[in-house]
Amino acid sequence: MNNNSCIFCKIVNKEIAAEIVYENDKFLAFLDINPKSAGHTQVIPKNHYRWVWDIPNIGEYFEVVRKIALAQKKVFKQDIIEGKIEGMDVHHAHFWVFPHETSANFNIRDLKTNAELLKKALNSI
Amino acid sequence: MNNNSCIFCKIVNKEIAAEIVYENDKFLAFLDINPKSAGHTQVIPKNHYRWVWDIPNIGEYFEVVRKIALAQKKVFKQDIIEGKIEGMDVHHAHFWVFPHETSANFNIRDLKTNAELLKKALNSI
Repeated sequence: MNNNSCIFCKIVNKEIAAEIVYENDKFLAFLDINPKSAGHTQVIPKNHYRWVWDIPNIGEYFEVVRKIALAQKKVFKQDIIEGKIEGMDVHHAHFWVFPHETSANFNIRDLKTNAELLKKALNSI
Repeated sequence: MNNNSCIFCKIVNKEIAAEIVYENDKFLAFLDINPKSAGHTQVIPKNHYRWVWDIPNIGEYFEVVRKIALAQKKVFKQDIIEGKIEGMDVHHAHFWVFPHETSANFNIRDLKTNAELLKKALNSI
């Protein structure tokens, strides 16, 4: 179930590249290209839903968000991991999860390195 | 499991009054006393956890958040229901869920009426 004109559906279908940090059969997590802090991730359902509140298996979705948050905390040395739902920008359900600040020694713009660090931590959870 | 100095634990224990809109054995939802929009709700676990990411049954928690969001949408005539996690203010895990705006005919300050409307809708979901 996806929408041909949706940019997040194109990321799910690998028609548009993204720094993917986690993927299972139902959900996908990738770095935001305009991060608020190093490691800022978008978590989305693979199916196209307009709003987070439309996701029927919302519990499983937030299990994935939690994995990402715990990995960010460890990798990016931040106690405070924020989360946000607005949804007016891209019309495919998404949750923003991001460290409150960027700790020293991390480069907010180096998406490739940040994605590698996060992926490595997520594989060991 | 609760913390004697925590204001949200006091709300759980009914030592401090709040406009409670939903309650089950594990979670509690009540109106924010300083709302961003009519119906702005805080959803918390009854047990004292520092961060949302510390909640072991996070899936069940977001099932409750979803119920609130769907009820807000219906009651307060808003398509956009936002969500937010920061957690620096009160040191007990909490999720903010609130309509993007306050529609005409609702009074953001009338917590009592807004709570009644939300409770009624939640009872019929």
